[in-house]
Amino acid sequence: MSKFPNNIFGIIQEDLVAIEKELYSIIQSPVDLVNDISVHLVQAGGKRLRPALYLLCARGGTPNQAELLPMAVAIELIHMATLVHDDVIDNAATRRGRPTANARWGNHSSVLTGDYLFAKAFSAVTLGTEKNRLKILTDVICTMCEGEIVQLKESFNPDQDEADYRLRVAQKTADFIAASCELGALSGQMDEHDVAQIREYGYAIGMAFQITDDILDFTASAEQLGKPVGNDLRQGIVTLPVLYALKNSPYRDELRGIVVKQAMSDNDVKRGLEIVHATEAVEYSYGQVNSYLQHARNVLPLALNSTVRESLLAVADFVGLRKY
Amino acid sequence: MSKFPNNIFGIIQEDLVAIEKELYSIIQSPVDLVNDISVHLVQAGGKRLRPALYLLCARGGTPNQAELLPMAVAIELIHMATLVHDDVIDNAATRRGRPTANARWGNHSSVLTGDYLFAKAFSAVTLGTEKNRLKILTDVICTMCEGEIVQLKESFNPDQDEADYRLRVAQKTADFIAASCELGALSGQMDEHDVAQIREYGYAIGMAFQITDDILDFTASAEQLGKPVGNDLRQGIVTLPVLYALKNSPYRDELRGIVVKQAMSDNDVKRGLEIVHATEAVEYSYGQVNSYLQHARNVLPLALNSTVRESLLAVADFVGLRKY
Repeated sequence: MSKFPNNIFGIIQEDLVAIEKELYSIIQSPVDLVNDISVHLVQAGGKRLRPALYLLCARGGTPNQAELLPMAVAIELIHMATLVHDDVIDNAATRRGRPTANARWGNHSSVLTGDYLFAKAFSAVTLGTEKNRLKILTDVICTMCEGEIVQLKESFNPDQDEADYRLRVAQKTADFIAASCELGALSGQMDEHDVAQIREYGYAIGMAFQITDDILDFTASAEQLGKPVGNDLRQGIVTLPVLYALKNSPYRDELRGIVVKQAMSDNDVKRGLEIVHATEAVEYSYGQVNSYLQHARNVLPLALNSTVRESLLAVADFVGLRKY
Repeated sequence: MSKFPNNIFGIIQEDLVAIEKELYSIIQSPVDLVNDISVHLVQAGGKRLRPALYLLCARGGTPNQAELLPMAVAIELIHMATLVHDDVIDNAATRRGRPTANARWGNHSSVLTGDYLFAKAFSAVTLGTEKNRLKILTDVICTMCEGEIVQLKESFNPDQDEADYRLRVAQKTADFIAASCELGALSGQMDEHDVAQIREYGYAIGMAFQITDDILDFTASAEQLGKPVGNDLRQGIVTLPVLYALKNSPYRDELRGIVVKQAMSDNDVKRGLEIVHATEAVEYSYGQVNSYLQHARNVLPLALNSTVRESLLAVADFVGLRKY
């Protein structure tokens, strides 16, 4: 995955460096294997989108400096924990071009390390954070689990509509990004109205982000993705481009036959990609992305200081532009 | 597994009924599958040892009534979450004589439901509990994960000593039971010294409980256990009876050859059980159990009210007597 251009997060650059350092520090365990897996996960990196949005939103108000780093670290640890469990569930071999924890250390240690990271996340924030904010974190983890379970249950099922898809994307991805932004606004001591607007911004960014991810499964190369092309399709995850093609392609019955296959061959996946590409599915899906991004831009509170506002607008631009 | 005799927990009988009700209430999810799996896990029951000890210890002091139920429920939810993940890790087909969640709904939904239960546990206590007590919970989850990972790493390894074993049992089981008791003493507003003694009691009970479990893997029937006999041995988990036999049996080299096998046949397991049984391993291990239980009885604070004291002593008696 591409990193965000440095200038977007210029205002929180030092914070981001501090987060990296703190992530390594907090995961330290007397058990070597726990250390090895956790360090691998931190090194695997990623965009640190959620803690960056948390920090940006906090700096849009007047934050209490002491609480920023622990919360930012907790948010990233929760994200890391969900990723390591997702990779077990998807039986993924690579993520961001590196072997997954499950590929390297097995499913069992990976499940336990995910649990360990969840617990470490709460250890990081328990003592210094207001309880209603801890509740936001625990609630959003429940929601993410529900979203993932619905996704599992509905895989290989072509009889879904866009409303099902949007609910799933909200639960899996957008609600957590919304919560990261909301927690930032709360740390920034914004008023209730602005907190709600910032949350809405995060939600829209999250929807756009996940739909883009779902598009890239069809358009990016394996090298760009750091994982195989058509990975979602192969797992029977019915994303927006597939839903569009299932409705609008002249080959929709053939596509339907592919989507329901629990064990797709490489040729099935290739043909599925072809059918989707031959429709306007990608353009249609980008249309949805842009509509969410426009909404994200529109709901930003007017009172926000201009540097933060520009950064949050730049995040919206980037999410719309990223091609891998 | 056997239930505790009713009279042991007579003093907290109403609380235990309330816990059952609250467990069903808190796991409710708009997602049917999440509900189904969670309800299955609550119904699978168990002794509710940890919340019962929490409540008993709390009632040994002067508890704030409002905080008891949420914490007791959180403790049981955390225990349930670890069990569902353990069953995935052990690839277990049955627990307490019923199909496991992974056997019925697959590993993936089970991993996610475990995560959901962890998060629900914290949702239950975040708003109404002092932060230092939340920290006790998060820290002990980290410890349990470390213990389980060490167990995985050291499976099929005959070169362990009793100190390794005790550390593992402490991390896997005793520390959480110790924390349940400690949290009870804190809810009961006991003084620092008594809190430490109660924690020590819980630790000793936990050690005795797990060593007994490890003995029962050799001595109980499959019907009594609700899972296959020799299950730990088959998974390469080197428990106290095995360690004893590896040191003292005339057939120790043969046993060593069995323990290192990653895929033991039924005959291997049967022969392993025979070799262990032909030594004093079971008697020796029960000797350790009794020594921990004696310590548990001795460390109970003198100031404890007599009904609670008698219940806690009865728990120690029961742990020593249970044969399945």
